[in-house]
Amino acid sequence: MKAVIIGGGSTYTPELMEGFMRLSNRAEGLRVILVDTDHQKLEVVYGILKRMIDAADAKIELSRTSLLDDALPDADFVVNQIRVGGNLARLMDETVPLQFGVLGQETTGPGGFANALRTIPVVLGIARRIQKYCPKAWLINFTNPSGMVTEALLKYSSVKAIGLCNSPINFCNMFARMFHVKTEDVFLDYFGLNHLSFVRKVFVNGKDVTDEAFSKLPVSEDERRIVEYLGMFPNYYLRYYYLRQEMVEEIKAKPKRAEEVLKIEQELLELYKDPLLTQKPSQLSKRGGAFYSTAAVELIEHLYGLRRGFQIINVMNNGAIKDLPADAVVEIPVYIDGNLLKPYVIGDLPLAVRGTIQTVKAYEQLTIQAACEGSYHKAVMALAQHPLVSSISLAEKILDALIDANGELFPKMNK
Amino acid sequence: MKAVIIGGGSTYTPELMEGFMRLSNRAEGLRVILVDTDHQKLEVVYGILKRMIDAADAKIELSRTSLLDDALPDADFVVNQIRVGGNLARLMDETVPLQFGVLGQETTGPGGFANALRTIPVVLGIARRIQKYCPKAWLINFTNPSGMVTEALLKYSSVKAIGLCNSPINFCNMFARMFHVKTEDVFLDYFGLNHLSFVRKVFVNGKDVTDEAFSKLPVSEDERRIVEYLGMFPNYYLRYYYLRQEMVEEIKAKPKRAEEVLKIEQELLELYKDPLLTQKPSQLSKRGGAFYSTAAVELIEHLYGLRRGFQIINVMNNGAIKDLPADAVVEIPVYIDGNLLKPYVIGDLPLAVRGTIQTVKAYEQLTIQAACEGSYHKAVMALAQHPLVSSISLAEKILDALIDANGELFPKMNK
Amino acid sequence: MKAVIIGGGSTYTPELMEGFMRLSNRAEGLRVILVDTDHQKLEVVYGILKRMIDAADAKIELSRTSLLDDALPDADFVVNQIRVGGNLARLMDETVPLQFGVLGQETTGPGGFANALRTIPVVLGIARRIQKYCPKAWLINFTNPSGMVTEALLKYSSVKAIGLCNSPINFCNMFARMFHVKTEDVFLDYFGLNHLSFVRKVFVNGKDVTDEAFSKLPVSEDERRIVEYLGMFPNYYLRYYYLRQEMVEEIKAKPKRAEEVLKIEQELLELYKDPLLTQKPSQLSKRGGAFYSTAAVELIEHLYGLRRGFQIINVMNNGAIKDLPADAVVEIPVYIDGNLLKPYVIGDLPLAVRGTIQTVKAYEQLTIQAACEGSYHKAVMALAQHPLVSSISLAEKILDALIDANGELFPKMNK
Amino acid sequence: MKAVIIGGGSTYTPELMEGFMRLSNRAEGLRVILVDTDHQKLEVVYGILKRMIDAADAKIELSRTSLLDDALPDADFVVNQIRVGGNLARLMDETVPLQFGVLGQETTGPGGFANALRTIPVVLGIARRIQKYCPKAWLINFTNPSGMVTEALLKYSSVKAIGLCNSPINFCNMFARMFHVKTEDVFLDYFGLNHLSFVRKVFVNGKDVTDEAFSKLPVSEDERRIVEYLGMFPNYYLRYYYLRQEMVEEIKAKPKRAEEVLKIEQELLELYKDPLLTQKPSQLSKRGGAFYSTAAVELIEHLYGLRRGFQIINVMNNGAIKDLPADAVVEIPVYIDGNLLKPYVIGDLPLAVRGTIQTVKAYEQLTIQAACEGSYHKAVMALAQHPLVSSISLAEKILDALIDANGELFPKMNK
Repeated sequence: MKAVIIGGGSTYTPELMEGFMRLSNRAEGLRVILVDTDHQKLEVVYGILKRMIDAADAKIELSRTSLLDDALPDADFVVNQIRVGGNLARLMDETVPLQFGVLGQETTGPGGFANALRTIPVVLGIARRIQKYCPKAWLINFTNPSGMVTEALLKYSSVKAIGLCNSPINFCNMFARMFHVKTEDVFLDYFGLNHLSFVRKVFVNGKDVTDEAFSKLPVSEDERRIVEYLGMFPNYYLRYYYLRQEMVEEIKAKPKRAEEVLKIEQELLELYKDPLLTQKPSQLSKRGGAFYSTAAVELIEHLYGLRRGFQIINVMNNGAIKDLPADAVVEIPVYIDGNLLKPYVIGDLPLAVRGTIQTVKAYEQLTIQAACEGSYHKAVMALAQHPLVSSISLAEKILDALIDANGELFPKMNK
Repeated sequence: MKAVIIGGGSTYTPELMEGFMRLSNRAEGLRVILVDTDHQKLEVVYGILKRMIDAADAKIELSRTSLLDDALPDADFVVNQIRVGGNLARLMDETVPLQFGVLGQETTGPGGFANALRTIPVVLGIARRIQKYCPKAWLINFTNPSGMVTEALLKYSSVKAIGLCNSPINFCNMFARMFHVKTEDVFLDYFGLNHLSFVRKVFVNGKDVTDEAFSKLPVSEDERRIVEYLGMFPNYYLRYYYLRQEMVEEIKAKPKRAEEVLKIEQELLELYKDPLLTQKPSQLSKRGGAFYSTAAVELIEHLYGLRRGFQIINVMNNGAIKDLPADAVVEIPVYIDGNLLKPYVIGDLPLAVRGTIQTVKAYEQLTIQAACEGSYHKAVMALAQHPLVSSISLAEKILDALIDANGELFPKMNK
Repeated sequence: MKAVIIGGGSTYTPELMEGFMRLSNRAEGLRVILVDTDHQKLEVVYGILKRMIDAADAKIELSRTSLLDDALPDADFVVNQIRVGGNLARLMDETVPLQFGVLGQETTGPGGFANALRTIPVVLGIARRIQKYCPKAWLINFTNPSGMVTEALLKYSSVKAIGLCNSPINFCNMFARMFHVKTEDVFLDYFGLNHLSFVRKVFVNGKDVTDEAFSKLPVSEDERRIVEYLGMFPNYYLRYYYLRQEMVEEIKAKPKRAEEVLKIEQELLELYKDPLLTQKPSQLSKRGGAFYSTAAVELIEHLYGLRRGFQIINVMNNGAIKDLPADAVVEIPVYIDGNLLKPYVIGDLPLAVRGTIQTVKAYEQLTIQAACEGSYHKAVMALAQHPLVSSISLAEKILDALIDANGELFPKMNK
Repeated sequence: MKAVIIGGGSTYTPELMEGFMRLSNRAEGLRVILVDTDHQKLEVVYGILKRMIDAADAKIELSRTSLLDDALPDADFVVNQIRVGGNLARLMDETVPLQFGVLGQETTGPGGFANALRTIPVVLGIARRIQKYCPKAWLINFTNPSGMVTEALLKYSSVKAIGLCNSPINFCNMFARMFHVKTEDVFLDYFGLNHLSFVRKVFVNGKDVTDEAFSKLPVSEDERRIVEYLGMFPNYYLRYYYLRQEMVEEIKAKPKRAEEVLKIEQELLELYKDPLLTQKPSQLSKRGGAFYSTAAVELIEHLYGLRRGFQIINVMNNGAIKDLPADAVVEIPVYIDGNLLKPYVIGDLPLAVRGTIQTVKAYEQLTIQAACEGSYHKAVMALAQHPLVSSISLAEKILDALIDANGELFPKMNK
């Protein structure tokens, strides 16, 4: 098995490597190649990974390169975790919209929109290399906004792309702890879009325990009321919609996450340089992305035929959710066993969330078109349909400010 | 032909009577009965209508009653133009939401929502009388919010209801004047919901003149840009979405429409009392609702087999618009010839407006359920999905304030 | 206006010319070009048409050519009425299936299937010339099997094709006579596929007269019972399904229609040569195709903006009929006014005919693919799903016999 | 766990009891009640079952009754395996249609149709008792025609019904043997209706082995060709369609299955009476229904939370198969884990079988209506759409003969 990690110089990668080390016990001849355009980070991260592998005596052949085309041939899996523009670009996503009283965040709202405009053209460029060098490889996408990036990949390339997020696995783990069972004994009846998803039912060993599970949720009073309104448990990111104004105030008051992350990353890189460090340092947990390696390795095991069962991933809808178009990427449970991928029938969206999901999907689809075509008009109408904007004149102002801030990182937007 | 006008004591009614007077030349034996619970207004309006009929020597048998059950038997058409709570309730719709920085308006946003909660139970009560006394009658609904009221009627009663609005006929007239043709030579490819509709194409005598028509629209610079973004011409009410914040400021600065209307109504009633007045006074034009009698009479002519052709009305979707549920009332062109009503296939919603229409429809459907079931939870989630609210915590605050203000006018809302 | 008639040497053409002569009063500068590969017939038919025009002093510029490419440039309308293989091929359609106890007929069953295999590739060749020389022209297709040919055109070319049949106009005329009204006062609620269609409701001047209309149908006892079972009035061709075995016996016993037509054609061509003949001879009525010129000219008037209203034509389904795919050609009423074409929403198919229509559509779609791809496998499975065959082994036998009989007229069928 | 077996006096029951004996090791306190109206058979079968249980020392509390209402209270599972009219009625199904040259068979064609008319009203009567006495019980239906009976149950009662057939498990076993793996390592991508189903893909341990699997099928030359045409492996019963005429000849030539079964049953009952017999006798295998107990016990284990995974069962479509109505029962793989039942998304039907499946489903739905309403008209149109009949006049003749033969066993059919 050969895996390529694009953006392999990320400080996250030791987390992912832990997963690959577990995997190496089951998948023979595992080769992992790190690809990154930032030579310095790549060397540092390569160093710590190498020491982790050696210390554990894991059967992994590790290498690194700055040239994507060198890494891709014969790959079975390509993990995409790039961040176009780095954390400085993220900082813009978190600050520019706030000037207009609207949430600044890297995936939800105008911040996620800017992220999509920057990222989609770059990822499609990567997809063209994959089509050329390893068309049979699975592309596992972690790059945010993961749902939109995956939809762009599935519509504008022929790459076998799957979008992944660590929210679902964290939900499963939470309910497993709550009921003192193993994660695989929990089944979530779950649906929605990436970062706009809902747990409709919780089953433990085939028993519907939804009422008990929801009553025990470790949430605030506000959030408990929201669960009651919905009759469902919403993804963390829904607070940006349901407590829209409160979250803007909270975010304005707090240091920006991008700045925190920049600082954490510097600390981590310093730690990684320590030749005596042979394990993922505990400080990495501050970086976020908990269990993302678990999600990734589980998916690789599923796709490689090493295990079978349901995993919640981002795939084309194709009729699973009735109230969304067939060609919309959705985040839903899919039964995976090697080359077999079968999402189950979700059916109608509950009326309490139908409109929100539908309008965010329209926003996403128009944003993808705007990114691929460089269309200012479509970009405005995408933002204007987003629940956090809901105005053409406000959309224009935010878009203009984002164009200004992002400069060359954005595709050229034609009026 | 027998027509019953519920809310016949409205100062609007002389406008409608003008239409009936034109109709009386074509429909023999026309009887019109005014029904109103406000005796005083009913007497005054009856007086001016009677003098109008006599002066014109029209063949109309006019009567009035305060008892609905007396009026209904044998009716062919029932025109519903009641306003539950009168203009004082409308004043609450226009002011309460503004306290939270959200549009106050009688049909769009939380104001329309409050109007729906007040109105739907009352109109369903009327529907039960119609089912009993004249089940074959057509119910032509003008009562706002017209789309939601019509959907409630079609879902919770078996009455043959059609929702009507004067916007479409005003569009047709505008384009007819623009191209110097008769209204019936204009064909609008039109779709959406009541007060959330779009002209996609304009045809004059079978020729697609959309580009020319849109370039000549008598609109502001802001609105012209919106037309370009959309590639369509939006209903007037879309400005409340597309220029959300600007409209809130504008409305805050202006006197409330309900207060203006209250004043105009007083003036009109005084005028109507003048025994020498035998015509609709010019001051009525200030009241709004231009051409609503034209729309109503045209519809009656269509349904009575006196003319055939397309009219834009509110009917069940049933597959006409692909991206909306079958059981959603939509405002679309319908070919009508007597008992024959055939909407044409609209197909997919344009992506630039798909999300907005879908989320407003989800809001509408949940509002109707909240009104019929008295559900506080559903009312919150309805408002929380409305593009002008987009927040559960804000929805709660607005709903609580509306419950307070409306008191007994609201159905009991159970938590 | 310029019209090209492909297959203009047909003995039918004088019927069509009568229509164009009526049209010439309304459409200025009408030019008509006949195209045919059979020089002799072309000359004879040109002669009689020319005399008809002159005698009536009609404003039509008539010409003829054997070269399609010479005729097409600047055409507004192209009428396609070719018959690939002529009446001798039709004779095979009528006889080969009978050897296996299955209906032989030029449009329904294996005969229509053979006709499609012969015809579709040729018509698609014509479509490529139209795309090159007159891409804006409307192609009005009369060539049988008209539904399948039109679906092939709309799927495998970009030509603006409409399929036409004379059944619907004959239905309208029949009901108009029955109720002593003009044809335009009759509205048929009609749906289905070409030669597999049903009248669901009959309206006269907006009044539902279905029960009276069905009770007065001039049909046999057997047919009346069928109307009762269906609650609808089926197209003439449904007898080949509903009285399957009886019709096979009847057809076996009768002379073949192709042979009759060959004889009638000879007689007509002789008549047409008479320099004194300046009118369509009465013998033409024996040829069939009554009122097909009325249908054609009506359609041209609709498309040219000379009249507006509903006409029953073959167009893409696109959601009009819920139980059929979007990309299936169906025969339904379409409101036409110049470039405006709007089918109305048909909705669900009645259960009594749903399966029959669906399986015939599957047969049609697979036949079109078989014709375009030359696929023996698809041809077998197409026939095997046809209600008159319903067997793979029988389908193989019939297909082999048809391949034998048609020789070079068939596309090469690859196993 | 309490299980009720309706039709428990069937000679099949020892097969089923073997399954319950395996189950008794996992499900504590297992009680099984046999219900049958035939006292004699019930006693004999009860005797052998009792001896089987005792000999194996299985933990099963067995009882019997002729009164359904006594058996039902507190049941967790109700297995329905009645045969209305017994094998003598089956003999009519196998012989009457043959008089008209049409297949006689207990599930496919007019025979299955007659079986449905006899059986559906009786099973709905049972369902009303279940609703009253044990509304939470699962009803596992084996009674043929299993798909139609299950659809009737799900539409006309509120019972939790699942239709079961032994074909799918036999497919899985066959492929497991072929690839030398366990049955649970085989995944069939399978869809269709009961006795009208197709294996689209075969996966073994997550690997697509379809091509190899299909090349190794133990089938005749004729059947191999059919597999090639389809690109799929059809259910055994498809030969009645695809080799329609050959199968009629074969069945005419052979002794009737009902007569064979009557004889086998007599032999079995004699054997069962032997007080020394304490095991299922080998002669039972001649009775058919191989592995039906495996299917039943597997389903009970799934529903009781004793195992999890996919099982192919008959359930409401609800969007799983795009080209069939939502309210159609289909036979598809469903992931089951206790109360969790999730069918995966099948999507579009392949064109090579779309028409056949659609028309048989229309036939089934109309047959169910005919059975419930006693409608002669609907019965005729149901049969007239069946691929083996395809004629109204033939449908009338067959229906009249079936009414004659079935007498009181049929519901009254009103013209």
